[in-house]
Amino acid sequence: MPAPSASIDPARPSWLPVPDGSDFPITNLPFGVAAGAGGPARVVVAIGDHAVDLESARSAGLVDLPAEATTGSLDRLLADDALDAARLRAWELLTDPRHRTATSNALRLRVDLRLAMPFTVADFVDFYASETHATAVGRIFRPGDDPLPVAWRHLPIGYHGRAGTVVVSDTPIDRPWGQRSEGGSVVFAPSAQLDFELEVGAVVGRPSARGRPVAVEDALDHIAGFVLVNDWSARDIQGWEYQPLGPFLGKSFATTISPWLVTADALAPYRVPPPDQRPPAQAHLRPPGPAFDLVLEAEVSGQLVARASFAGMYWTVAQQVAHLTSNGAGLRTGDLLASGTVSDPRPGGAGCLLEATKGGSTPFHLPDGRALTWLEDGDTVALRGHAGHGPTRIGFGPCRGTVRPAHDLHRPPGGQP
Amino acid sequence: MPAPSASIDPARPSWLPVPDGSDFPITNLPFGVAAGAGGPARVVVAIGDHAVDLESARSAGLVDLPAEATTGSLDRLLADDALDAARLRAWELLTDPRHRTATSNALRLRVDLRLAMPFTVADFVDFYASETHATAVGRIFRPGDDPLPVAWRHLPIGYHGRAGTVVVSDTPIDRPWGQRSEGGSVVFAPSAQLDFELEVGAVVGRPSARGRPVAVEDALDHIAGFVLVNDWSARDIQGWEYQPLGPFLGKSFATTISPWLVTADALAPYRVPPPDQRPPAQAHLRPPGPAFDLVLEAEVSGQLVARASFAGMYWTVAQQVAHLTSNGAGLRTGDLLASGTVSDPRPGGAGCLLEATKGGSTPFHLPDGRALTWLEDGDTVALRGHAGHGPTRIGFGPCRGTVRPAHDLHRPPGGQP
Repeated sequence: MPAPSASIDPARPSWLPVPDGSDFPITNLPFGVAAGAGGPARVVVAIGDHAVDLESARSAGLVDLPAEATTGSLDRLLADDALDAARLRAWELLTDPRHRTATSNALRLRVDLRLAMPFTVADFVDFYASETHATAVGRIFRPGDDPLPVAWRHLPIGYHGRAGTVVVSDTPIDRPWGQRSEGGSVVFAPSAQLDFELEVGAVVGRPSARGRPVAVEDALDHIAGFVLVNDWSARDIQGWEYQPLGPFLGKSFATTISPWLVTADALAPYRVPPPDQRPPAQAHLRPPGPAFDLVLEAEVSGQLVARASFAGMYWTVAQQVAHLTSNGAGLRTGDLLASGTVSDPRPGGAGCLLEATKGGSTPFHLPDGRALTWLEDGDTVALRGHAGHGPTRIGFGPCRGTVRPAHDLHRPPGGQP
Repeated sequence: MPAPSASIDPARPSWLPVPDGSDFPITNLPFGVAAGAGGPARVVVAIGDHAVDLESARSAGLVDLPAEATTGSLDRLLADDALDAARLRAWELLTDPRHRTATSNALRLRVDLRLAMPFTVADFVDFYASETHATAVGRIFRPGDDPLPVAWRHLPIGYHGRAGTVVVSDTPIDRPWGQRSEGGSVVFAPSAQLDFELEVGAVVGRPSARGRPVAVEDALDHIAGFVLVNDWSARDIQGWEYQPLGPFLGKSFATTISPWLVTADALAPYRVPPPDQRPPAQAHLRPPGPAFDLVLEAEVSGQLVARASFAGMYWTVAQQVAHLTSNGAGLRTGDLLASGTVSDPRPGGAGCLLEATKGGSTPFHLPDGRALTWLEDGDTVALRGHAGHGPTRIGFGPCRGTVRPAHDLHRPPGGQP
């Protein structure tokens, strides 16, 4: 399916009423995957409290896509670079009254859907692109030194995470076991410093060939859309293991993504200039490309703990793509490029508890009076994100997970491990 | 296909002559994938100078496997835990004279095959399991300090690499561009410190569920086989970027694996006790499981630069699997768990140039007199590995790659970048 020559007209309303404040007005139309009732999973497009079942629409002759593109996952739509065209068709169906009757048969109530992983994660890369966050973490771990790592302003630092443990919103999160250093001993126990990280992930559609670096100007052509990412982190495990090869088991137990892929086209109106970079980035990382004007929030058990602007991230998504491929590495469809913790210098802007509690030394006081240092069993973390403001804003829907107690599999019968 | 109740009888010869010293006697029978002539790629089993084309054998009714298991890649055989049964059947075909005529029609000369990536890499994890290597690297980078990182003797340190740039032997390796610090400036240029790493990779067949740690006693049940791994490393890029999140672009441009998957069954006779661990590993990492008695070699442009025993690795494969899953992370079919550089305390035992040249300060003298510090354009690195000795030894076949000059894509017309 070729790239569409037209784009959606944001002024044209949907014939389907959309509640005020919905994350999913007609100008959004993000893609998800709903588990099928007995059959294969189906690609769905969110609109207000509903979703268009693209497989039903295809069966009814309303969309011109192969069945492989409307069932299973978004993998085929991503690989074919066909999201924008499919979104444009969904927009036509939902705005042209002539399609109302036929399209209504393919509508589902979103509350009835069980949303699945929207795509197969190829490689998962996590960056460290917020200057506020990297500075705060440096102050905690290297007091007195320059808080930013020496290379930080020269390249977007990142690392590979575990693709196989990326899970969709509402998947329960088991408190991980792990090694840590405690009072001079090495113990193996459930993590006592469980944290969240408020992030945004860019998802690769169009791949790039190994040996052919992607120019920064072309980088966003490879990004099909965005999700919210909670890069759950066990700070005690991470702190013990991370020298010299970086985080491993402190992160690899789970990473949660939001179920709706908000397309790059839908976010195009919210591109804004990125912050100035000093020193200027090297030639292959210039011009930096746009930032995205998203406001992100994290709640713990229903109470706001962080609100941060994604527009202030030092390194842009385009620079991350250009850097990642500058050594000849190729991109694959389904690569997930997460931003790293998004923090904001304003009060309440710390995108993780490590930063909000200064390494656990200063509890964060929730509105209900609870002193929060690290996540407790039963805590639900919900990330939210929006572009724009008021009735025209679009959103991601929640990225949510609830902490379950550590399992007993490592405990010998009748005793401590 | 269920696990076989029988195993091969190593004393029974093949009716097909196998040259002395072949890596692939009848007791090996490793699996590879040969690009098809116009058709799909075919699963092949190496025997001496030949290979059995399993898809031809299947079409002829000689093996009872679905076509999905004999074409494309080893993914289906790995996911079905069916390698051992398929190997046993290949052994029957090649040792029972009654099958000689029919099987001969499915034989190919190995020199005629173009070998492809044998399986789809799910997650790629690289460990750091050689005490000799980790100590030597620590002495180079942290002279005066304890050379081993503080956690090194307590857990098998590792990190995730880029699965999407794992390539098969004989894929050319472009010298990567990257940032480095040089004389107080930050430059972006082709790497001047290109290195190889001599490693062994364990390949996961049977997956494990998220949230269900694999007990160390059961760990090897998840390992279908082994390949050689060259974890190409650009030391200048790595040294500049790796704090605090570990190696990224210094490694992600390419990782080469050998094309033949030597099965865990074939290596079972070469299990040996691992080295003592002091302090003893924690309960969930005990007993350590076996080491494997492999001798590994690295050649640069035909000249031996390293010979190291894999039997001396401090952390075992079983411990790596148990550690990796101890936080609840699941294994997926196709996960590649590489050992990290295999080094040996004996002279000539350094499994990478970083170690052999003491960080580039002391060139390594090749037998032909060349002083080798880092890899030069045109150098071919070939890794080899064998289990056992003399006529009964089995091998991996070479894991090979030739360094090509850096491309010009980052150079502006007419000038330096």
